[in-house]
Amino acid sequence: MNRASQPSALPAELPVTDRTRHRRLRAQGSLARADLEAILDAGFVCHLGVVVDGHPMVVPTVYGRDDTHLFLHGSVAGRSLAAAPKAPVCVTVTHVDGLVLARSVFEHGVNYRSAMIHGVPRTVTDPDEKLRGLRLLTEHATPGQWDYARRPSRKELAATTLLALSLAEASVKTAVGPPEDGDGPDAALGIWAGTLPLTATWGTPVADPLLPAGIEPPPHITGRGGTRQG
Amino acid sequence: MNRASQPSALPAELPVTDRTRHRRLRAQGSLARADLEAILDAGFVCHLGVVVDGHPMVVPTVYGRDDTHLFLHGSVAGRSLAAAPKAPVCVTVTHVDGLVLARSVFEHGVNYRSAMIHGVPRTVTDPDEKLRGLRLLTEHATPGQWDYARRPSRKELAATTLLALSLAEASVKTAVGPPEDGDGPDAALGIWAGTLPLTATWGTPVADPLLPAGIEPPPHITGRGGTRQG
Repeated sequence: MNRASQPSALPAELPVTDRTRHRRLRAQGSLARADLEAILDAGFVCHLGVVVDGHPMVVPTVYGRDDTHLFLHGSVAGRSLAAAPKAPVCVTVTHVDGLVLARSVFEHGVNYRSAMIHGVPRTVTDPDEKLRGLRLLTEHATPGQWDYARRPSRKELAATTLLALSLAEASVKTAVGPPEDGDGPDAALGIWAGTLPLTATWGTPVADPLLPAGIEPPPHITGRGGTRQG
Repeated sequence: MNRASQPSALPAELPVTDRTRHRRLRAQGSLARADLEAILDAGFVCHLGVVVDGHPMVVPTVYGRDDTHLFLHGSVAGRSLAAAPKAPVCVTVTHVDGLVLARSVFEHGVNYRSAMIHGVPRTVTDPDEKLRGLRLLTEHATPGQWDYARRPSRKELAATTLLALSLAEASVKTAVGPPEDGDGPDAALGIWAGTLPLTATWGTPVADPLLPAGIEPPPHITGRGGTRQG
Protein backbone atom coordinates (compact mmCIF):
# COMPACT_ATOMS: atom_id res chain seq x y z
CA MET A 1 0.00 0.00 0.00
CA ASN A 2 1.60 3.25 -1.04
CA ARG A 3 1.59 6.70 0.45
CA ALA A 4 -1.55 7.93 -1.27
CA SER A 5 -3.65 5.12 0.13
CA GLN A 6 -3.71 5.50 3.89
CA PRO A 7 -4.32 2.31 5.83
CA SER A 8 -6.93 4.00 8.01
CA ALA A 9 -10.10 4.75 6.09
CA LEU A 10 -11.69 8.17 6.32
CA PRO A 11 -14.69 8.53 8.63
CA ALA A 12 -18.08 7.74 7.10
CA GLU A 13 -19.36 11.15 8.11
CA LEU A 14 -17.75 14.18 6.47
CA PRO A 15 -16.41 16.76 8.93
CA VAL A 16 -18.03 20.20 9.04
CA THR A 17 -15.55 23.02 8.51
CA ASP A 18 -15.95 26.72 7.83
CA ARG A 19 -15.73 25.94 4.14
CA THR A 20 -18.09 22.97 4.04
CA ARG A 21 -20.90 24.17 6.32
CA HIS A 22 -24.17 24.22 4.38
CA ARG A 23 -26.18 27.38 4.21
CA ARG A 24 -28.69 27.16 1.38
CA LEU A 25 -32.34 26.34 1.24
CA ARG A 26 -33.78 24.07 -1.45
CA ALA A 27 -30.43 22.39 -1.97
CA GLN A 28 -29.75 19.80 0.69
CA GLY A 29 -26.36 19.13 2.18
CA SER A 30 -25.17 15.69 3.08
CA LEU A 31 -22.47 14.59 5.45
CA ALA A 32 -22.44 10.96 4.29
CA ARG A 33 -19.17 9.92 2.72
CA ALA A 34 -21.12 7.44 0.58
CA ASP A 35 -22.95 10.37 -1.05
CA LEU A 36 -19.62 12.06 -1.81
CA GLU A 37 -18.28 8.87 -3.36
CA ALA A 38 -21.42 8.32 -5.43
CA ILE A 39 -21.12 11.80 -6.94
CA LEU A 40 -17.42 11.35 -7.66
CA ASP A 41 -18.03 7.93 -9.23
CA ALA A 42 -20.79 9.25 -11.49
CA GLY A 43 -18.42 11.60 -13.33
CA PHE A 44 -14.89 11.90 -14.62
CA VAL A 45 -14.41 15.64 -15.24
CA CYS A 46 -14.06 18.06 -12.34
CA HIS A 47 -13.49 21.79 -12.10
CA LEU A 48 -10.26 22.54 -10.31
CA GLY A 49 -9.98 25.96 -8.70
CA VAL A 50 -6.60 27.44 -7.89
CA VAL A 51 -5.45 30.91 -6.89
CA VAL A 52 -2.81 32.42 -9.18
CA ASP A 53 -1.44 35.82 -8.15
CA GLY A 54 -4.57 36.40 -6.10
CA HIS A 55 -6.86 35.56 -9.03
CA PRO A 56 -9.03 32.45 -9.14
CA MET A 57 -8.56 30.08 -12.07
CA VAL A 58 -11.10 27.33 -12.71
CA VAL A 59 -10.01 24.62 -15.13
CA PRO A 60 -11.71 21.40 -16.14
CA THR A 61 -9.65 18.25 -15.74
CA VAL A 62 -10.09 14.49 -15.36
CA TYR A 63 -9.87 12.61 -12.07
CA GLY A 64 -10.00 9.22 -10.44
CA ARG A 65 -10.04 8.22 -6.80
CA ASP A 66 -9.34 5.63 -4.16
CA ASP A 67 -10.87 5.50 -0.68
CA THR A 68 -8.88 8.42 0.66
CA HIS A 69 -7.66 10.53 -2.25
CA LEU A 70 -8.67 12.10 -5.52
CA PHE A 71 -6.09 11.84 -8.31
CA LEU A 72 -6.12 14.69 -10.80
CA HIS A 73 -4.51 15.06 -14.16
CA GLY A 74 -2.52 18.16 -13.47
CA SER A 75 -1.24 19.19 -16.87
CA VAL A 76 -3.57 22.13 -17.32
CA ALA A 77 -3.19 23.43 -13.81
CA GLY A 78 0.33 22.12 -13.41
CA ARG A 79 2.07 25.33 -14.28
CA SER A 80 -0.02 27.31 -11.86
CA LEU A 81 0.40 24.73 -9.12
CA ALA A 82 4.10 24.32 -9.75
CA ALA A 83 4.44 28.03 -9.17
CA ALA A 84 2.58 27.71 -5.88
CA PRO A 85 3.22 24.42 -4.11
CA LYS A 86 1.32 23.99 -0.85
CA ALA A 87 -1.41 26.17 -2.31
CA PRO A 88 -4.99 25.24 -1.46
CA VAL A 89 -7.34 24.10 -4.20
CA CYS A 90 -11.04 23.50 -4.51
CA VAL A 91 -12.27 20.68 -6.72
CA THR A 92 -15.93 20.65 -7.68
CA VAL A 93 -17.78 17.86 -9.49
CA THR A 94 -21.31 18.70 -10.63
CA HIS A 95 -24.00 16.63 -12.32
CA VAL A 96 -26.88 18.67 -13.71
CA ASP A 97 -30.02 16.52 -13.53
CA GLY A 98 -32.56 18.95 -14.93
CA LEU A 99 -34.45 22.19 -14.73
CA VAL A 100 -36.94 22.97 -11.97
CA LEU A 101 -39.79 24.85 -13.63
CA ALA A 102 -41.97 26.50 -11.02
CA ARG A 103 -45.09 28.67 -11.28
CA SER A 104 -42.98 31.73 -10.50
CA VAL A 105 -39.63 32.67 -12.00
CA PHE A 106 -38.38 33.23 -8.45
CA GLU A 107 -38.82 29.53 -7.55
CA HIS A 108 -37.07 28.25 -10.66
CA GLY A 109 -33.93 26.25 -10.14
CA VAL A 110 -31.78 23.34 -11.17
CA ASN A 111 -31.72 19.79 -9.87
CA TYR A 112 -28.14 18.74 -9.39
CA ARG A 113 -25.63 16.73 -7.40
CA SER A 114 -22.42 18.49 -6.50
CA ALA A 115 -19.35 17.61 -4.48
CA MET A 116 -16.72 20.09 -3.39
CA ILE A 117 -13.33 19.03 -2.04
CA HIS A 118 -10.90 21.35 -0.29
CA GLY A 119 -7.27 20.70 0.36
CA VAL A 120 -3.65 21.15 -0.58
CA PRO A 121 -2.77 18.73 -3.36
CA ARG A 122 0.47 16.81 -3.45
CA THR A 123 2.33 16.31 -6.72
CA VAL A 124 2.84 12.59 -7.15
CA THR A 125 6.48 11.88 -7.99
CA ASP A 126 7.09 8.25 -7.03
CA PRO A 127 6.83 6.25 -10.32
CA ASP A 128 4.91 3.37 -8.71
CA GLU A 129 2.41 5.67 -7.09
CA LYS A 130 2.08 7.64 -10.31
CA LEU A 131 1.38 4.44 -12.24
CA ARG A 132 -1.26 3.46 -9.68
CA GLY A 133 -2.84 6.93 -9.79
CA LEU A 134 -2.96 6.87 -13.59
CA ARG A 135 -4.57 3.44 -13.44
CA LEU A 136 -7.24 4.77 -11.06
CA LEU A 137 -7.78 7.77 -13.33
CA THR A 138 -7.95 5.67 -16.52
CA GLU A 139 -10.25 3.07 -14.99
CA HIS A 140 -12.45 5.77 -13.51
CA ALA A 141 -13.11 7.30 -16.94
CA THR A 142 -13.16 4.02 -18.89
CA PRO A 143 -13.41 0.84 -16.85
CA GLY A 144 -11.47 -1.93 -18.56
CA GLN A 145 -9.19 0.37 -20.50
CA TRP A 146 -6.07 -0.02 -18.33
CA ASP A 147 -5.75 -3.69 -19.23
CA TYR A 148 -6.54 -2.98 -22.89
CA ALA A 149 -4.43 0.00 -23.95
CA ARG A 150 -0.65 0.27 -23.87
CA ARG A 151 0.45 1.37 -20.41
CA PRO A 152 2.69 4.38 -19.87
CA SER A 153 6.39 4.02 -20.44
CA ARG A 154 8.87 5.36 -17.92
CA LYS A 155 9.38 8.40 -20.14
CA GLU A 156 5.64 9.01 -20.47
CA LEU A 157 5.19 8.64 -16.72
CA ALA A 158 7.84 11.26 -16.16
CA ALA A 159 6.06 13.61 -18.57
CA THR A 160 2.73 13.25 -16.74
CA THR A 161 1.72 15.58 -13.94
CA LEU A 162 -0.46 13.85 -11.39
CA LEU A 163 -1.87 15.41 -8.24
CA ALA A 164 -3.21 13.64 -5.15
CA LEU A 165 -5.79 15.47 -3.04
CA SER A 166 -7.14 14.13 0.24
CA LEU A 167 -10.88 13.47 0.38
CA ALA A 168 -10.91 14.38 4.08
CA GLU A 169 -12.48 17.85 3.71
CA ALA A 170 -15.46 17.77 1.42
CA SER A 171 -19.06 18.82 1.14
CA VAL A 172 -21.96 17.48 -0.84
CA LYS A 173 -24.99 19.36 -2.02
CA THR A 174 -27.93 18.05 -4.00
CA ALA A 175 -31.23 19.44 -5.20
CA VAL A 176 -33.89 16.99 -6.30
CA GLY A 177 -37.61 16.88 -6.89
CA PRO A 178 -40.39 19.22 -7.96
CA PRO A 179 -40.62 22.98 -7.46
CA GLU A 180 -41.78 24.20 -4.07
CA ASP A 181 -44.58 26.59 -4.96
CA GLY A 182 -47.24 23.92 -5.47
CA ASP A 183 -48.95 24.63 -2.15
CA GLY A 184 -48.66 28.42 -2.22
CA PRO A 185 -50.82 31.13 -3.76
CA ASP A 186 -49.17 30.69 -7.18
CA ALA A 187 -50.69 27.19 -7.48
CA ALA A 188 -53.97 28.88 -8.46
CA LEU A 189 -52.40 30.51 -11.53
CA GLY A 190 -52.88 27.43 -13.69
CA ILE A 191 -49.25 27.46 -14.77
CA TRP A 192 -47.65 24.11 -15.55
CA ALA A 193 -44.87 23.23 -13.12
CA GLY A 194 -42.50 20.34 -12.80
CA THR A 195 -39.05 19.31 -13.88
CA LEU A 196 -37.36 18.84 -17.24
CA PRO A 197 -34.80 16.05 -16.82
CA LEU A 198 -31.38 16.20 -18.43
CA THR A 199 -29.43 13.00 -19.00
CA ALA A 200 -25.93 12.42 -20.33
CA THR A 201 -25.69 9.29 -22.44
CA TRP A 202 -22.75 7.47 -23.99
CA GLY A 203 -23.01 7.09 -27.75
CA THR A 204 -21.71 4.60 -30.29
CA PRO A 205 -17.90 4.41 -30.49
CA VAL A 206 -16.41 6.33 -33.43
CA ALA A 207 -13.30 4.68 -34.87
CA ASP A 208 -10.17 6.71 -35.51
CA PRO A 209 -10.07 7.27 -39.31
CA LEU A 210 -6.51 5.93 -39.23
CA LEU A 211 -7.61 2.63 -37.68
CA PRO A 212 -7.06 -0.30 -40.06
CA ALA A 213 -10.16 -2.30 -41.02
CA GLY A 214 -10.85 -5.34 -38.89
CA ILE A 215 -9.98 -3.88 -35.46
CA GLU A 216 -13.26 -3.86 -33.56
CA PRO A 217 -13.90 -1.89 -30.37
CA PRO A 218 -13.66 -4.10 -27.26
CA PRO A 219 -16.78 -5.03 -25.24
CA HIS A 220 -15.91 -2.69 -22.35
CA ILE A 221 -16.30 0.20 -24.80
CA THR A 222 -19.18 -1.00 -27.00
CA GLY A 223 -21.08 -2.12 -23.90
CA ARG A 224 -21.23 1.44 -22.70
CA GLY A 225 -23.16 2.77 -25.71
CA GLY A 226 -26.62 3.94 -24.75
CA THR A 227 -25.90 3.81 -21.02
CA ARG A 228 -26.27 6.78 -18.77
CA GLN A 229 -23.28 8.80 -17.60
CA GLY A 230 -23.62 10.67 -14.35
CA MET B 1 -30.23 50.56 -22.87
CA ASN B 2 -29.07 50.12 -19.30
CA ARG B 3 -25.67 50.12 -17.71
CA ALA B 4 -24.98 46.43 -18.17
CA SER B 5 -25.45 46.61 -21.90
CA GLN B 6 -22.75 48.86 -23.30
CA PRO B 7 -23.59 50.63 -26.55
CA SER B 8 -20.26 49.63 -28.09
CA ALA B 9 -20.06 45.91 -28.80
CA LEU B 10 -16.99 43.98 -27.72
CA PRO B 11 -14.39 43.23 -30.40
CA ALA B 12 -14.91 40.06 -32.41
CA GLU B 13 -11.46 38.85 -31.44
CA LEU B 14 -10.83 38.09 -27.77
CA PRO B 15 -7.84 39.91 -26.30
CA VAL B 16 -4.83 37.88 -25.14
CA THR B 17 -3.89 38.50 -21.52
CA ASP B 18 -1.59 36.69 -19.10
CA ARG B 19 -4.57 34.70 -17.93
CA THR B 20 -6.03 33.81 -21.30
CA ARG B 21 -2.89 32.93 -23.26
CA HIS B 22 -3.09 29.34 -24.50
CA ARG B 23 -0.34 26.94 -23.69
CA ARG B 24 -1.58 23.39 -24.19
CA LEU B 25 -1.16 20.91 -26.98
CA ARG B 26 -4.08 18.81 -28.25
CA ALA B 27 -6.60 21.33 -26.98
CA GLN B 28 -6.95 24.23 -29.34
CA GLY B 29 -7.47 27.79 -28.27
CA SER B 30 -9.70 30.19 -30.10
CA LEU B 31 -9.78 33.95 -30.08
CA ALA B 32 -13.09 34.23 -31.91
CA ARG B 33 -15.80 35.84 -29.84
CA ALA B 34 -18.35 33.77 -31.80
CA ASP B 35 -16.76 30.60 -30.39
CA LEU B 36 -17.04 31.99 -26.86
CA GLU B 37 -20.70 32.84 -27.40
CA ALA B 38 -21.47 29.42 -28.89
CA ILE B 39 -20.06 27.68 -25.81
CA LEU B 40 -21.93 29.96 -23.44
CA ASP B 41 -25.18 29.49 -25.38
CA ALA B 42 -24.86 25.70 -25.35
CA GLY B 43 -25.08 25.55 -21.54
CA PHE B 44 -26.73 27.14 -18.55
CA VAL B 45 -24.63 26.02 -15.56
CA CYS B 46 -21.17 27.46 -15.00
CA HIS B 47 -18.54 26.97 -12.32
CA LEU B 48 -17.82 30.23 -10.53
CA GLY B 49 -14.45 30.51 -8.84
CA VAL B 50 -13.90 33.02 -6.06
CA VAL B 51 -11.13 33.50 -3.51
CA VAL B 52 -12.29 33.47 0.11
CA ASP B 53 -9.64 34.17 2.74
CA GLY B 54 -6.98 33.10 0.26
CA HIS B 55 -8.76 29.82 -0.51
CA PRO B 56 -10.39 29.08 -3.86
CA MET B 57 -14.09 28.18 -3.84
CA VAL B 58 -15.69 26.73 -6.98
CA VAL B 59 -19.48 26.70 -7.01
CA PRO B 60 -21.91 25.74 -9.76
CA THR B 61 -24.50 28.35 -10.64
CA VAL B 62 -26.80 29.34 -13.51
CA TYR B 63 -26.10 32.13 -15.97
CA GLY B 64 -27.44 34.07 -18.91
CA ARG B 65 -25.81 36.67 -21.13
CA ASP B 66 -26.17 39.58 -23.45
CA ASP B 67 -23.60 40.78 -25.99
CA THR B 68 -21.25 42.23 -23.40
CA HIS B 69 -22.00 40.62 -20.03
CA LEU B 70 -22.65 37.37 -18.28
CA PHE B 71 -25.39 37.47 -15.63
CA LEU B 72 -24.94 35.05 -12.75
CA HIS B 73 -27.31 33.92 -10.08
CA GLY B 74 -25.26 34.90 -7.10
CA SER B 75 -27.08 33.33 -4.18
CA VAL B 76 -24.59 30.55 -3.59
CA ALA B 77 -21.54 32.72 -3.99
CA GLY B 78 -23.27 35.84 -2.76
CA ARG B 79 -22.08 35.63 0.80
CA SER B 80 -18.49 35.16 -0.30
CA LEU B 81 -18.71 37.93 -2.85
CA ALA B 82 -20.51 40.28 -0.48
CA ALA B 83 -17.59 39.86 1.87
CA ALA B 84 -15.19 40.74 -0.90
CA PRO B 85 -16.57 43.26 -3.36
CA LYS B 86 -14.21 44.14 -6.22
CA ALA B 87 -12.78 40.64 -5.93
CA PRO B 88 -11.82 38.91 -9.18
CA VAL B 89 -13.70 35.81 -10.24
CA CYS B 90 -13.21 33.14 -12.87
CA VAL B 91 -16.26 31.63 -14.54
CA THR B 92 -15.80 28.41 -16.49
CA VAL B 93 -18.36 26.71 -18.71
CA THR B 94 -17.45 23.23 -19.93
CA HIS B 95 -19.20 20.81 -22.27
CA VAL B 96 -17.77 17.29 -22.20
CA ASP B 97 -18.23 15.78 -25.66
CA GLY B 98 -16.65 12.39 -25.13
CA LEU B 99 -13.66 10.27 -24.33
CA VAL B 100 -10.60 10.06 -26.57
CA LEU B 101 -9.48 6.44 -26.48
CA ALA B 102 -5.99 6.11 -27.90
CA ARG B 103 -3.68 3.12 -28.38
CA SER B 104 -1.63 4.24 -25.38
CA VAL B 105 -2.93 5.41 -22.01
CA PHE B 106 -0.64 8.42 -22.35
CA GLU B 107 -2.56 9.71 -25.40
CA HIS B 108 -5.99 9.33 -23.80
CA GLY B 109 -8.01 12.46 -23.30
CA VAL B 110 -11.37 14.14 -23.37
CA ASN B 111 -13.08 16.02 -26.18
CA TYR B 112 -14.59 19.17 -24.76
CA ARG B 113 -15.50 22.80 -25.31
CA SER B 114 -14.64 25.16 -22.51
CA ALA B 115 -14.90 28.90 -21.97
CA MET B 116 -13.22 30.78 -19.15
CA ILE B 117 -14.13 34.34 -18.24
CA HIS B 118 -12.09 36.55 -15.94
CA GLY B 119 -13.22 39.74 -14.32
CA VAL B 120 -14.57 41.58 -11.33
CA PRO B 121 -18.33 41.08 -11.15
CA ARG B 122 -20.71 43.87 -10.30
CA THR B 123 -23.71 43.21 -8.06
CA VAL B 124 -26.77 44.37 -9.96
CA THR B 125 -28.88 46.62 -7.73
CA ASP B 126 -31.05 48.67 -10.10
CA PRO B 127 -34.48 46.92 -10.18
CA ASP B 128 -34.92 47.41 -13.94
CA GLU B 129 -31.50 46.03 -14.71
CA LYS B 130 -32.09 43.16 -12.29
CA LEU B 131 -35.35 42.32 -14.00
CA ARG B 132 -33.64 42.38 -17.38
CA GLY B 133 -30.78 40.21 -16.09
CA LEU B 134 -33.21 37.69 -14.62
CA ARG B 135 -35.06 37.59 -17.91
CA LEU B 136 -31.81 36.86 -19.76
CA LEU B 137 -30.97 34.17 -17.21
CA THR B 138 -34.43 32.57 -17.33
CA GLU B 139 -34.63 32.65 -21.12
CA HIS B 140 -31.11 31.29 -21.40
CA ALA B 141 -32.01 28.17 -19.40
CA THR B 142 -35.55 27.80 -20.72
CA PRO B 143 -36.45 29.85 -23.80
CA GLY B 144 -40.09 30.89 -23.62
CA GLN B 145 -40.39 30.62 -19.87
CA TRP B 146 -40.20 34.35 -19.03
CA ASP B 147 -43.48 35.01 -20.82
CA TYR B 148 -45.08 31.88 -19.35
CA ALA B 149 -44.26 31.86 -15.62
CA ARG B 150 -45.14 34.53 -13.07
CA ARG B 151 -42.50 37.23 -13.12
CA PRO B 152 -40.66 38.35 -9.99
CA SER B 153 -42.41 40.71 -7.60
CA ARG B 154 -40.57 43.72 -6.24
CA LYS B 155 -39.98 41.80 -3.01
CA GLU B 156 -38.64 38.76 -4.86
CA LEU B 157 -36.39 40.97 -6.98
CA ALA B 158 -34.95 42.48 -3.82
CA ALA B 159 -34.30 38.99 -2.44
CA THR B 160 -32.38 37.92 -5.55
CA THR B 161 -28.64 38.35 -5.87
CA LEU B 162 -27.61 38.93 -9.46
CA LEU B 163 -24.07 39.50 -10.68
CA ALA B 164 -22.95 41.05 -13.97
CA LEU B 165 -19.55 40.06 -15.32
CA SER B 166 -18.00 41.60 -18.43
CA LEU B 167 -17.26 39.22 -21.28
CA ALA B 168 -14.26 41.33 -22.27
CA GLU B 169 -11.55 39.01 -20.90
CA ALA B 170 -12.18 35.43 -21.87
CA SER B 171 -10.54 32.40 -23.38
CA VAL B 172 -11.88 29.42 -25.26
CA LYS B 173 -10.40 25.98 -25.47
CA THR B 174 -11.70 22.98 -27.37
CA ALA B 175 -10.50 19.47 -28.07
CA VAL B 176 -12.14 17.57 -30.88
CA GLY B 177 -11.49 14.58 -33.08
CA PRO B 178 -9.68 11.26 -32.88
CA PRO B 179 -6.62 10.34 -30.81
CA GLU B 180 -3.24 11.36 -32.18
CA ASP B 181 -1.27 8.14 -32.05
CA GLY B 182 -2.70 6.67 -35.25
CA ASP B 183 0.43 7.41 -37.27
CA GLY B 184 2.99 6.49 -34.63
CA PRO B 185 4.57 3.19 -33.61
CA ASP B 186 1.57 2.28 -31.40
CA ALA B 187 -0.62 1.99 -34.50
CA ALA B 188 0.91 -1.44 -35.09
CA LEU B 189 -0.35 -2.77 -31.75
CA GLY B 190 -3.78 -3.65 -33.14
CA ILE B 191 -5.53 -1.75 -30.35
CA TRP B 192 -8.89 -0.18 -31.17
CA ALA B 193 -8.78 3.61 -30.98
CA GLY B 194 -11.34 6.31 -31.47
CA THR B 195 -13.79 8.35 -29.47
CA LEU B 196 -16.77 7.51 -27.29
CA PRO B 197 -19.25 10.39 -27.63
CA LEU B 198 -21.18 11.73 -24.67
CA THR B 199 -24.40 13.65 -25.26
CA ALA B 200 -26.71 15.45 -22.84
CA THR B 201 -30.36 15.13 -23.83
CA TRP B 202 -33.52 16.74 -22.46
CA GLY B 203 -36.11 14.23 -21.31
CA THR B 204 -39.88 14.21 -21.00
CA PRO B 205 -41.28 16.85 -18.62
CA VAL B 206 -42.24 15.47 -15.19
CA ALA B 207 -45.25 17.21 -13.67
CA ASP B 208 -45.15 18.44 -10.08
CA PRO B 209 -47.23 15.90 -8.07
CA LEU B 210 -49.18 18.86 -6.68
CA LEU B 211 -50.20 20.02 -10.17
CA PRO B 212 -53.97 19.70 -10.73
CA ALA B 213 -55.05 17.44 -13.57
CA GLY B 214 -55.64 19.18 -16.87
CA ILE B 215 -52.70 21.59 -16.83
CA GLU B 216 -50.49 20.49 -19.71
CA PRO B 217 -46.86 21.52 -20.19
CA PRO B 218 -46.53 24.33 -22.76
CA PRO B 219 -44.96 23.68 -26.19
CA HIS B 220 -41.74 25.52 -25.35
CA ILE B 221 -41.11 22.84 -22.72
CA THR B 222 -42.50 19.70 -24.39
CA GLY B 223 -40.75 20.68 -27.63
CA ARG B 224 -37.42 20.34 -25.93
CA GLY B 225 -37.81 16.66 -25.03
CA GLY B 226 -35.35 14.49 -26.89
CA THR B 227 -33.27 17.43 -28.09
CA ARG B 228 -29.62 17.79 -27.34
CA GLN B 229 -28.34 20.10 -24.64
CA GLY B 230 -24.84 21.45 -25.05
